[in-house]
Amino acid sequence: MPTSPLRVGLAGLGTVGLGVVRIVQSHAELIAARTGRAVVITSVSARDRGKLREADLSAYAWEGDPVALARRDDVDVFVEVMGGHEGPARAATEAAIAAGKDVVTANKALLAHHGHALAIAAEAAGRVIRFEAAVAGGIPVVKALTEGLTANQMRRVMGVMNGTCNFILTRMQSAGLPYKAVFEEARQLGYLEADPNLDVGGIDAGHKLSLLAAIAFGTQVSFDAVELEGIGNVSIDDIRLAEDMGYRIKLLGVAQMTGRGLEQRMTPCLVPSDSPLGQLQGGTNMVVLDGDSVGQIVLRGPGAGMGPTASAVMADVADIARGTRVSTFGRPAAGLAVPIAAKAATPSPYYLRMTLLDKPGALARIATCLGEAGISIDQMRQYGHAGVHATVLIVTHSAAPADVAHAIGGFAATGVLVGEPTTLRIEQV
Amino acid sequence: MPTSPLRVGLAGLGTVGLGVVRIVQSHAELIAARTGRAVVITSVSARDRGKLREADLSAYAWEGDPVALARRDDVDVFVEVMGGHEGPARAATEAAIAAGKDVVTANKALLAHHGHALAIAAEAAGRVIRFEAAVAGGIPVVKALTEGLTANQMRRVMGVMNGTCNFILTRMQSAGLPYKAVFEEARQLGYLEADPNLDVGGIDAGHKLSLLAAIAFGTQVSFDAVELEGIGNVSIDDIRLAEDMGYRIKLLGVAQMTGRGLEQRMTPCLVPSDSPLGQLQGGTNMVVLDGDSVGQIVLRGPGAGMGPTASAVMADVADIARGTRVSTFGRPAAGLAVPIAAKAATPSPYYLRMTLLDKPGALARIATCLGEAGISIDQMRQYGHAGVHATVLIVTHSAAPADVAHAIGGFAATGVLVGEPTTLRIEQV
Repeated sequence: MPTSPLRVGLAGLGTVGLGVVRIVQSHAELIAARTGRAVVITSVSARDRGKLREADLSAYAWEGDPVALARRDDVDVFVEVMGGHEGPARAATEAAIAAGKDVVTANKALLAHHGHALAIAAEAAGRVIRFEAAVAGGIPVVKALTEGLTANQMRRVMGVMNGTCNFILTRMQSAGLPYKAVFEEARQLGYLEADPNLDVGGIDAGHKLSLLAAIAFGTQVSFDAVELEGIGNVSIDDIRLAEDMGYRIKLLGVAQMTGRGLEQRMTPCLVPSDSPLGQLQGGTNMVVLDGDSVGQIVLRGPGAGMGPTASAVMADVADIARGTRVSTFGRPAAGLAVPIAAKAATPSPYYLRMTLLDKPGALARIATCLGEAGISIDQMRQYGHAGVHATVLIVTHSAAPADVAHAIGGFAATGVLVGEPTTLRIEQV
Repeated sequence: MPTSPLRVGLAGLGTVGLGVVRIVQSHAELIAARTGRAVVITSVSARDRGKLREADLSAYAWEGDPVALARRDDVDVFVEVMGGHEGPARAATEAAIAAGKDVVTANKALLAHHGHALAIAAEAAGRVIRFEAAVAGGIPVVKALTEGLTANQMRRVMGVMNGTCNFILTRMQSAGLPYKAVFEEARQLGYLEADPNLDVGGIDAGHKLSLLAAIAFGTQVSFDAVELEGIGNVSIDDIRLAEDMGYRIKLLGVAQMTGRGLEQRMTPCLVPSDSPLGQLQGGTNMVVLDGDSVGQIVLRGPGAGMGPTASAVMADVADIARGTRVSTFGRPAAGLAVPIAAKAATPSPYYLRMTLLDKPGALARIATCLGEAGISIDQMRQYGHAGVHATVLIVTHSAAPADVAHAIGGFAATGVLVGEPTTLRIEQV
């Protein structure tokens, strides 16, 4: 192992970048003791040099262009915490690899879109790309999955991986506020991305899921195949009614390999209120890893923020300092299979909420549709009437998504359905 | 990285050993794909060759003596899953290191007693010792702490790390059975070690805590300094009364570095019923890692059993196959400090249960003792009388252990106390 310091070029001086500076400056001795090698920052890059930052950057060379930073001779590891899946982040990461640098990135979007090509390039150059900070913030889940569970055929990966969505959903529940009001709160608290749809549309969490799925199942990252549904349509009514039946609503990612191919979905789901996922409050993240030997491992921790994200970035840098070399997605990129995307077909119980005309036999007609589709009912509740309408809630026994869709298709012909029913999967964790 | 197979010598063919054989035989391709190197077993060793085992061992050389196995030329990694902190396990591990082999062990007792000397020897020989399976079974907690949180100054490590104790305590609670009856159940289910005191005396869990503390705080393993108290005195009354006040009793390990030195304790504690630790049922383990950058990470999973433990053993073997080299306790052994053992002095709320003579002013005298020791009362309950005695329950506000001991010392002089009070710390997780 080289005894010279490992030299970091840091691209991005936002919250995470400053967190990295803080750790390198305050914990230099600790990191050197633990890795056997000093870690230093030699140069930094950000859009605005003049911006006031709470850090002493005077010892570092400044590059206006992250591509130039990535190519510097005094950089061994290019740390990318700028974000964005095209433009400077992509160009600089490609330049770093081409220039023979290892890469540590917190950029889930970049890897979800270009991870396979980048992994191929890195391996051709004999370099590594590490991305612990890209998934579930401070939780060392990429390491746990890639290295800690190496001996397992993975069965399933699940997780709540967007803290903002979980904040919104738990706040709606605890305060009894509608989505729009809590969305506005989140915006004012600075919890939302510049494009809020990255959060509430499930895109950011979908990026993360696609990265974990690639590792777990040995497939090329295929973010485009993730079934995505955001939380924008989750109503306070559904949150209340679900709670009433012992469930909570989470934006939950599930990836599993089935006989038909790889299922990946990031959608609002019901989980039992007393399950670890059901108990998850606020911005905390949780990932559930299910392997054939180990069974179920649950990891929980802060999913974002300066300290946790910088902790994850620096864990990757420390691994490089130690000389650890792990393939980007846990096996050589050339060996990653092209996944066959399978539409979610794994059966599960379903939650159905609908408004019916308050006519004799209305409920029987709906029940008949379900029965004809081979779906049996676990729980059913009818709530107080609003004029001529009644709210009806049905929890089914386990049913295939296609059968549920078929049954719902039949509801329209009954003549008793008002509007569209709300359909949510129930995941037993 | 060598392209020749990594050759494992497996010492021990009990549950864990057979689990290792099973993974190597069934997942050879997967492990080779993920690590870039084939992993094979070349030779095995166990006490009784003739014993019927559900595995085909015919391809492996047999050694009656694990020391001879450890020295074989066709062994690169010595995997020790025999157990016991002296005798063959120790001798064979020392022999393996002396013969230039890497070591993977599930043996917490061996490392708790001789870990420092073994680490020194391994480093002198340029070898590694890995022990993921020794702590919390299948949970990759050694990896999370040593590598995943490298950039953190650790503040505290906590955990429920003996599944048998947690099974007994949760079963007592759910079935309302006394300790002795559930202990007998656990024995019949085969959950107890040959010497049950290793489990219920807290020794096994204390071993694990001492290993995590060494990594977290950069100190030599010091199992002898762990304050140990088993679960044998936890009564069904305490479990019921604690539940009544919103708490559950767990055998909880806590290690933290304080201004006075390293506190390590493994004792029955109360935790809030709705906390992650409070929710932990049966044989599941949970570890809480608290670092200055990352905040709190919680890991949960199966703490024992064939699959989980073998999964952890094989993760270590896979790391060696990849070429990963990490110091035994997370930094060079020569750099590990001799810890100053500090008796637990961190203040916490306390649960006190006592029997008082049913005399006017009895409770006032007890309250006066607490007040004079500077301890204030958070909750107090007096339960139905049994003849001339009353059961009194007090939950204090945060108080130093020494002050609590002082107050309790004073109870005797009041003349109203019957027998000894039960004193349990309450940990806010």
